[in-house]
Amino acid sequence: MSFVITKPLIDTLRGDVEQGRDSAIQAVLTDLHPADIAAVLDRLNLDDAVYVYRLLESEESADVLLELHEELREELLNSLTSREIAEDVLEHIDSDDAADVMGDLSEDKQREVIALLEDPEQREDIEELLTYREGTAGALMAKELVSVRMDWTVARAIVEMRRQAQEVDHVYTVYVVDKDERLAGILPLKDLLFGAESTRTLIKHLIESEVFSVTTSTDVEEVVQRMKKYDVVVLPVVDANGLLVGRITFDDVMDVMTEEAEEDYQLASGISEDVDATDSPLVQVRARLPWLLIGLAGGIVSSRIIALYEGQLRIDPTMAFFMPLIAATAGNVGVQSSAIVVQGLASGSMVNVHLLIRMWKELRVALLSAMVCALVIFGLNMALQQTQALTWTVSIALFTVILTAAMFGTVIPLLLDRMKVDPALATGPFVTTLNDIFGLLTYFTVGHFMYDLFP
Amino acid sequence: MSFVITKPLIDTLRGDVEQGRDSAIQAVLTDLHPADIAAVLDRLNLDDAVYVYRLLESEESADVLLELHEELREELLNSLTSREIAEDVLEHIDSDDAADVMGDLSEDKQREVIALLEDPEQREDIEELLTYREGTAGALMAKELVSVRMDWTVARAIVEMRRQAQEVDHVYTVYVVDKDERLAGILPLKDLLFGAESTRTLIKHLIESEVFSVTTSTDVEEVVQRMKKYDVVVLPVVDANGLLVGRITFDDVMDVMTEEAEEDYQLASGISEDVDATDSPLVQVRARLPWLLIGLAGGIVSSRIIALYEGQLRIDPTMAFFMPLIAATAGNVGVQSSAIVVQGLASGSMVNVHLLIRMWKELRVALLSAMVCALVIFGLNMALQQTQALTWTVSIALFTVILTAAMFGTVIPLLLDRMKVDPALATGPFVTTLNDIFGLLTYFTVGHFMYDLFP
Repeated sequence: MSFVITKPLIDTLRGDVEQGRDSAIQAVLTDLHPADIAAVLDRLNLDDAVYVYRLLESEESADVLLELHEELREELLNSLTSREIAEDVLEHIDSDDAADVMGDLSEDKQREVIALLEDPEQREDIEELLTYREGTAGALMAKELVSVRMDWTVARAIVEMRRQAQEVDHVYTVYVVDKDERLAGILPLKDLLFGAESTRTLIKHLIESEVFSVTTSTDVEEVVQRMKKYDVVVLPVVDANGLLVGRITFDDVMDVMTEEAEEDYQLASGISEDVDATDSPLVQVRARLPWLLIGLAGGIVSSRIIALYEGQLRIDPTMAFFMPLIAATAGNVGVQSSAIVVQGLASGSMVNVHLLIRMWKELRVALLSAMVCALVIFGLNMALQQTQALTWTVSIALFTVILTAAMFGTVIPLLLDRMKVDPALATGPFVTTLNDIFGLLTYFTVGHFMYDLFP
Repeated sequence: MSFVITKPLIDTLRGDVEQGRDSAIQAVLTDLHPADIAAVLDRLNLDDAVYVYRLLESEESADVLLELHEELREELLNSLTSREIAEDVLEHIDSDDAADVMGDLSEDKQREVIALLEDPEQREDIEELLTYREGTAGALMAKELVSVRMDWTVARAIVEMRRQAQEVDHVYTVYVVDKDERLAGILPLKDLLFGAESTRTLIKHLIESEVFSVTTSTDVEEVVQRMKKYDVVVLPVVDANGLLVGRITFDDVMDVMTEEAEEDYQLASGISEDVDATDSPLVQVRARLPWLLIGLAGGIVSSRIIALYEGQLRIDPTMAFFMPLIAATAGNVGVQSSAIVVQGLASGSMVNVHLLIRMWKELRVALLSAMVCALVIFGLNMALQQTQALTWTVSIALFTVILTAAMFGTVIPLLLDRMKVDPALATGPFVTTLNDIFGLLTYFTVGHFMYDLFP
């Protein structure tokens, strides 16, 4: 049941588009999952993709649209009229996806599309979802859900559920509300199927009242944590008054998880905006250049520090040999230490751990690493018959630099976290640059003393 | 419904443990979700945690055990007898979790525990799960599922499902098999609830035959991709003959996603094993030192390269000023380029993109960045009235180094990927070190020519 896109398939499709063999194209795509059709379109150029897209049936095409990579989706949406978006796309998808699609449109087009929606309830749902701030549960949730009242009988509930379920693609859980629409519990489908003794049983006797819910203003990161912690497939969303207003399903949470992991990874790699391999070079430069310039500024500061020791370099140019070694090791240690803290914060295993305890542990790791590295380089410099002054300078500086870099690497992400800045920033070029500079400063300061000691 | 662990709560619990106020402890923990109880235990020291754990009811304690951080879970398991593990833990949890728990035990203890299991079916299930290689769908799946036969009526299916559902905590989907137990399709609960016209309808008229399944040997990464792509909450697992042997649910896939993201992040940060902030210093050193030593080796190579140009440094020590700037920029650019490729490979947006096309795009990004950086540093060196030779050397070398680092950064993860090595390795210290070395080599080579040109 797995579908693999091959180059011959794409080549055939291109030929079919060129020759206008519409039925051949439809034959290839029929029976494919919308996600697979989207993957095929992503491999075509824009014009061909639009052509193939217009051959799809409207219910299917809406699902395909949602699965496309962002760039192609935006271009495709631009090629559709407001009426096509309202009737062929939004009518066929869930409210959360509809709100996402609306987010890709200009404000003017948004207004036009909303005015063209025939179902007033859908219009209201989409308008409501667009009011929530990005990054909150409200902006992530869908309005479609199946709910029954506590005071209904099983028989009435089944009739009502049957009606509501037509609007909802996947029913994972049935929510139970009180007469004011306040969330009172859930009714697992399993219990409804096998649990009721009679169709006259009241729903309130079947509900599970321990429900993990979030509010519309809950941060999406918190939503992810909650769903992972409690292993629930769908989380109900309530408003400030406890009224049930939507639900968030596991698939949306998985998408958020992927985005968050990508974001952390990019921050750590010195890329500031969310860029993708498919983005244009200009967009990529905008995301990457700022970090390079920060690194450049760090390099300039380094050059000024070294300039202070120009006299020493004139006396012994071999001191320059080990500058890259010191700077690189400081950078590597700092990134390692930060990464451990960043992950500890993310997984929750560092909550409530005192800063000093964390630093003491890191210090022991650093001490051990520093001893090994300093000894290795000491032995090497002895073997190479470097001067005593240089041999001692390199090893002492390396030892010191590993300790300080580990401390910086531990403290900076913790500080960032307290300042409500993403601590993953600390594993990026920012801390590496700081450690480079500090490493060189240490190296030359140690050298200053050693060359006095061993003239 | 959200539970937050506070310091006063932990302090109170510690006091209760010390004074042996068991009922007070139970009163605090009652009604808490197992994941929350586990979070409380993770905050206590081992002895206190064991004490509190033993106060839990056995059904609950098993769920709590599964949610504990690894270190505490292993310690707790060590403090339990084989009989306690068999009767109080394994009896109450799903087969996939049971296999995980078994994985934490020594081989001798595994054998003892298995011999003590009363239910032969459970014994068989666990033994089967332990045979699958880690990282495959077989090792991730659970044996518990609800299945019905194609040739049954709805009435019979409901009776059978009712019986099977007692063994399964969450029923997301009912699987349909043919008379040989081969997977034939699924029966969404929704359709069963609302879709059948009569209880004499045959199941085969209700099934959805388009099922996305995986085999026991499918790689877990593929399982994650499949679930995310098709938005299915549970994936059926079949063996080599197409027989239905298990299922993988969304919560297990979420755990895998988290682990994979952590692994990539650690690789990129130069940490080789899966370590956590809670691991002992020795374990951390083992995971981190190898990378530091690789970096150190790179630094030593750098020192030898610089040594080749000792004569030049004697003539103009100011050349040393810009070594860190060149090396750091090369490192930063390389990591950025690699990160874009690594993510493109992970998201699938780079599949089928030709290497040369990818390199050409990256070259354009690099050209733009290189021009800006080279100009900035050129202006600065002019302002600082550096020599013409140095001013030209730094800018030309920086320009060249940004281009080459971008090319290395693009090609290396792609090569690693083709060699079936995790491309995330390329964003770590490995490529940074390579770029450092190459950057310095470029710098001195350019310097060699420039100092001839502007003597």
